[in-house]
Amino acid sequence: MKTKFDKIEYFQSMDKWFRAANYLSVAQIYLRDNPLLKEELTKEHIKLYPIGHWGTIPGQNFIYTHLNRVINKYDLDMFYIEGPGHGGQVMISNSYLDGTYTEIYPEITEDTLGIKKMCKRFSFPGGTASHAAPETPGSIHEGGELGYSLSHATGNILDNPNVIAATVIGDGEAETGPLCSGWFSNSFINPVNDGVVLPILHLNGGKISNPTLLSRKPKEEVEQYFLGLGWKPHFFEWSEDKTNIEIHQEMAQTIDLVIEEILEIKRVAKLNDATKATRPQWPVLIVRTPKGWTCPKEWDGQAIEGSFRAHQVPLPVSAFKVEHIKELEKWLKSYKPEELFDENGKIIDEIRSLAPLGDKRMGSNPITNGGINPKELDLSKWQDFAIKLDYPGQIKGQDMVELGKYMADTILKNPTNFRVFGPDETKSNRLFALFDVTKRQWLENYSEKYDEWVSPVGRIIDSQLSEHQAQGFLEGYVLTGRHGFFASYESFLRVVDSMITQHMKWMKKSLELSWRKDYPSLNLIATSTAFQQDHNGYTHQDPGLLGHLADKRPELIREYLPADSNTLLAVMEKSLKERNVINLIVASKQPREQFFNVDEAKELVEKGYKVIDWASNIKEGEEPEIVFVSSGVEPNLETLAAISIINSHYPDLKIKYVNVVDLLKLRSPHIDSRGLSDEEFDKVFTKDKLIVFAFHGYEGLIRDIFFTRTNRNLIIHGYRENGDITTSFDIRQLSQMDRFHIAKDAIAKLYGEKGKSFTDLMDKKIKEHNEYIHEYGYDMPEVVEWKWKNINE
Amino acid sequence: MKTKFDKIEYFQSMDKWFRAANYLSVAQIYLRDNPLLKEELTKEHIKLYPIGHWGTIPGQNFIYTHLNRVINKYDLDMFYIEGPGHGGQVMISNSYLDGTYTEIYPEITEDTLGIKKMCKRFSFPGGTASHAAPETPGSIHEGGELGYSLSHATGNILDNPNVIAATVIGDGEAETGPLCSGWFSNSFINPVNDGVVLPILHLNGGKISNPTLLSRKPKEEVEQYFLGLGWKPHFFEWSEDKTNIEIHQEMAQTIDLVIEEILEIKRVAKLNDATKATRPQWPVLIVRTPKGWTCPKEWDGQAIEGSFRAHQVPLPVSAFKVEHIKELEKWLKSYKPEELFDENGKIIDEIRSLAPLGDKRMGSNPITNGGINPKELDLSKWQDFAIKLDYPGQIKGQDMVELGKYMADTILKNPTNFRVFGPDETKSNRLFALFDVTKRQWLENYSEKYDEWVSPVGRIIDSQLSEHQAQGFLEGYVLTGRHGFFASYESFLRVVDSMITQHMKWMKKSLELSWRKDYPSLNLIATSTAFQQDHNGYTHQDPGLLGHLADKRPELIREYLPADSNTLLAVMEKSLKERNVINLIVASKQPREQFFNVDEAKELVEKGYKVIDWASNIKEGEEPEIVFVSSGVEPNLETLAAISIINSHYPDLKIKYVNVVDLLKLRSPHIDSRGLSDEEFDKVFTKDKLIVFAFHGYEGLIRDIFFTRTNRNLIIHGYRENGDITTSFDIRQLSQMDRFHIAKDAIAKLYGEKGKSFTDLMDKKIKEHNEYIHEYGYDMPEVVEWKWKNINE
Repeated sequence: MKTKFDKIEYFQSMDKWFRAANYLSVAQIYLRDNPLLKEELTKEHIKLYPIGHWGTIPGQNFIYTHLNRVINKYDLDMFYIEGPGHGGQVMISNSYLDGTYTEIYPEITEDTLGIKKMCKRFSFPGGTASHAAPETPGSIHEGGELGYSLSHATGNILDNPNVIAATVIGDGEAETGPLCSGWFSNSFINPVNDGVVLPILHLNGGKISNPTLLSRKPKEEVEQYFLGLGWKPHFFEWSEDKTNIEIHQEMAQTIDLVIEEILEIKRVAKLNDATKATRPQWPVLIVRTPKGWTCPKEWDGQAIEGSFRAHQVPLPVSAFKVEHIKELEKWLKSYKPEELFDENGKIIDEIRSLAPLGDKRMGSNPITNGGINPKELDLSKWQDFAIKLDYPGQIKGQDMVELGKYMADTILKNPTNFRVFGPDETKSNRLFALFDVTKRQWLENYSEKYDEWVSPVGRIIDSQLSEHQAQGFLEGYVLTGRHGFFASYESFLRVVDSMITQHMKWMKKSLELSWRKDYPSLNLIATSTAFQQDHNGYTHQDPGLLGHLADKRPELIREYLPADSNTLLAVMEKSLKERNVINLIVASKQPREQFFNVDEAKELVEKGYKVIDWASNIKEGEEPEIVFVSSGVEPNLETLAAISIINSHYPDLKIKYVNVVDLLKLRSPHIDSRGLSDEEFDKVFTKDKLIVFAFHGYEGLIRDIFFTRTNRNLIIHGYRENGDITTSFDIRQLSQMDRFHIAKDAIAKLYGEKGKSFTDLMDKKIKEHNEYIHEYGYDMPEVVEWKWKNINE
Repeated sequence: MKTKFDKIEYFQSMDKWFRAANYLSVAQIYLRDNPLLKEELTKEHIKLYPIGHWGTIPGQNFIYTHLNRVINKYDLDMFYIEGPGHGGQVMISNSYLDGTYTEIYPEITEDTLGIKKMCKRFSFPGGTASHAAPETPGSIHEGGELGYSLSHATGNILDNPNVIAATVIGDGEAETGPLCSGWFSNSFINPVNDGVVLPILHLNGGKISNPTLLSRKPKEEVEQYFLGLGWKPHFFEWSEDKTNIEIHQEMAQTIDLVIEEILEIKRVAKLNDATKATRPQWPVLIVRTPKGWTCPKEWDGQAIEGSFRAHQVPLPVSAFKVEHIKELEKWLKSYKPEELFDENGKIIDEIRSLAPLGDKRMGSNPITNGGINPKELDLSKWQDFAIKLDYPGQIKGQDMVELGKYMADTILKNPTNFRVFGPDETKSNRLFALFDVTKRQWLENYSEKYDEWVSPVGRIIDSQLSEHQAQGFLEGYVLTGRHGFFASYESFLRVVDSMITQHMKWMKKSLELSWRKDYPSLNLIATSTAFQQDHNGYTHQDPGLLGHLADKRPELIREYLPADSNTLLAVMEKSLKERNVINLIVASKQPREQFFNVDEAKELVEKGYKVIDWASNIKEGEEPEIVFVSSGVEPNLETLAAISIINSHYPDLKIKYVNVVDLLKLRSPHIDSRGLSDEEFDKVFTKDKLIVFAFHGYEGLIRDIFFTRTNRNLIIHGYRENGDITTSFDIRQLSQMDRFHIAKDAIAKLYGEKGKSFTDLMDKKIKEHNEYIHEYGYDMPEVVEWKWKNINE
């Protein structure tokens, strides 16, 4: 069907848009004045320090121009993900051309002065980033650390059935591990209930200074690669033999095919039952254009256009170095700006008329700013799922099993905006109850006989063994205003700790922008923790995400170490309600004693810590002789056991016990505004009494926290990087975070030589347990069946 | 050609090996006594807590059996990489069958008692891990954190032209990002100079509790996937219609084809010039067998064999739960142990005779224990490359440029056992001199016109944009006794911080084993640091690897922050000579003042810190009024500048300046045995004088370090998580780690209200610089051209 979008005139106008976008993109690198070359270019017009990346820009401007065309032609709801690491001008220039940029930043007017300001502030102190970033209209994905564009895009379009994520992937990014695994995302997208990811692989041939792999492989190999990954490849190949208009025509024909395939897949899918869907062969578009396309072909005898040399600033011109200013002027004028902007610097109507209308413009698609119709989560009260306890330690329970029940309820109440992600660990992490209400979404073949709980429709996506994918999906889901969590083996969250940081950076910058909406919390559950990996051993033990995140912006980070089921439930409700934070929740999955009743758990989570009266034997306001503190499941258990051992030997010793759930609240308010004041801290922990702190993580973090406080009389028992395959109790012993070591160190410090008979006894216990464990491969009944007795009675 | 290896009898014997390996693998999970079922199986024979993973085992035993066959048939030099995360029994059982295990562990004798011990200690406290681990003979790759088998294998075989890495990849592992990007390794292997990676993708269909992606895709897609990645796929597909002997025959035919293709590629390659080589189409072997193959087909009405349910311990039998003991006995007996072991429990000669001889056995291939002919590095003295300085600050220099010259020399002196790895950053990191002596190894197409410094032969591998690959290659190279470094943008080393940890874990465990050789150091150069990413902005800023590694085993970690070229050179020589450590070297690439002469740099690196006399104005032994400390390039520069500002205003103030290069030496010897004693620490830093510490990383690490020390009168200026695109100086200002903030905070603390005129002046400076920067996008000449003057003259 020949429409107005297929006529020569339309392509001629498109070429003007393309030239205008390119012109503005070059201008942003170099110019601080005279942005439309109304005068001869001089030193005063050039930036002192031109920064920016040119190489990826023209190819992306070309793609963007054509995406606008298909949005108009097919009335698509499409947004743009800029995977390539640089080329921030792409989204700035194109959203300036479609009007969005000026709507968001009214100071960037649609005239010469506006363009001048836009140019000057690009890659400039206090200005706009040199890659797609929070300040870029229409952006939902940062071009800094590479590899996450496909997983983000997938997270974005889940449960948004009418949306298309046009996801441009640079050929550099395509070489990263996360991106390579991201191609498998098509196995999890339901064609009825979810939207569409349209990957656009941009082969421009070069990276910073190297060729790229996919651009140098034979075309048939690239084709096979995508067929193998379940995508249908469509190629657009630039050629210097064609005119610009021919190039536009050919690209338009290719992209029409792609879009029509997508629409057909969606049309057919909607005729059928979502639960019967299979993976369609979604199209992938491969666009080959020369790196730096349209810039000078050569410089100093070496190729620039088509070469890695076009990566950053192709021509060496700055206010300090103007000898080649004429070449820059020539390059800029090659786009014929006089045909593109009117005398006031306003973009001509012919160009503007190509822009999609209103929110159809990719620069203002609502999905890129908090999502389409984001809703608060409908949450039951955690208390409805609480464990009833008559006394502390009455029963054993599995915290993650209890959490599973609460989360199953949350899934039922929020059928389209709450999801659970993971790398094949949902069952291992014992969220069993989820499978009573939902399945794992999986569009590949499966068998009723050999497989379990998989279905084309489900609220869990955990069937790819990739932390990068799980984290990327969740980030993409949260950035579009929905809710969820990623439950992972604690140590393997470290695989994505840098991704987590990048999400935090996105939030930090977003929160500085008044036009950006806020985000639901990003919730990470670290379970199967260092101290519960007795059976998998040392490689599976790393509690260091606590330290990693504690280094970051305190207002964006929460770290919770609930010691039992009720506390975990309370933490989860709070976490799911909070916004603009990353919640790290360290949770137990193994059967452990349950200690805290509903009121205690509530206080623990609200205040962040609590003096536990039944494990203290001081009166209100009385100063203890020793303060025990713990943070974490095993630390709490072992500290309580140590207290009861000590109490039975030293019944008169005045003990105070503090459980800490919201770890970072212990920090000084000078470091973290949520932190306890020195006054409160001293009241809780005393100014000089011995503190014995059992901690789930590395000890350095506790030393850091206590550095600013008065009391330095501190013994820490944390994870000491001694791993092995062993028993549950022995894994604590290896870090000396078991009851015997805790009790021994406390008494040795308190009483010195006078405590020798006690410390000898502890040494004996340690030896005895060690021998038993190494004989039987099992813990002694004494620790397995240990029961807490209230020392305050 | 029909050889003895192709006869029915040979396959019959192989099937016995296969059964024996399976038998031993099941026995290791369950049994603590009666290992060969000489008596009826009872509760006393079963472990209290059977642990282990069965699912992956039989398929791998099958593969291992067939690899032995081709080693014998073609006289191959082959070793085994066990990519799947579990199944430690594979390498134990097979190396027990070939005799290696008993040679390494003489207590595991070749009789019933030996087998009993071997079984008991599997997955047992103090015993052997449940995955391939350092204690596993023939292992060079740990099955913990998944995804690195291909990059490790590639690192292993570089410069080992006669070696084949048989690299088994689980279908779970094949879903991880790092592994997906690992397939591109074939683009970097030179068929003449390097060895062979033979990937063996093991499709068994299930992971922990999910189906796997590649096993459920149509065969033609899997075929296309590998063709697209440049590999030639060969399939072996199990079928229940075939007898075991037919299965062996078919597998043998397939693997023969694969090996013959490899040998032919090598034969042809060697006829040609290595510098003219192109990427061959190496074979990949895809082996499909049921998960848990040969275990009971069903349990409790549900499929086990062929299902994820076979992943761990398929039958619920333990010493505590023996109701199904007969089923276990039946399963074990299905392998007919009486046909495999003699009356004393010795493996029968027919089986043993299938083992390759001596070091051809994969359990004892020398490459897996420190490498084939590992050599010390031949290193020039760093002083030969030192910058000559008449006085501190005389010239500016680029530390990485200077390092490049030294490393170019190292490449020339060590043409086959020293390599440089990176993710397309060698040039950006300014190791320019390397390209005078070598190129980047790259076997894909390239063009003289558009590309630079690529060649099929080269000592640099940096043409894939993947930190996972760079780190994996280096790990593999170092674990086989060779030397090298990975130079990375500092922030993106975080992408692999978990990999780095796993390498450390491997070293820790290896060092506990007397039979394991030691390893050359693993050297990480973190450059383009947080404070030098002014032009790339916030996403490129994260100095947190310092804290990450500081949490780990102190004896295995070194952190160096050389402040100029000479110090960097001295650090590098030390780092390349050291063994069994991970060296993190934070280095500058931008032009910066050079301060330390050869003698100073030598002392800085040998002692780890130095009191800099020309930046101190106290006499020997005199107590200062204030101690300035810095660690890192910009911290050093800004501290010196702050000192000179303060000195010009307060010439009588007694200042001591300490530069710290070997950061972790500041720790207490109770935490790090290399740490300064309290006495020495107090002598250097005083017990109570104000310390102003400018630090390259996050401040928590410095608080941690100082917690145990006497002096807490400390102001820290570190990286404060405020990033932006801005100028070089402003990036320091954003963290208040610039001269003006440092000087201001110091005087405010020292003099309070009395210092107000000074602190006001500093505030004025800060404001002035801020305004200038935001006007011009450039730093004020005052800081760019600042010159140090000796305050001691």
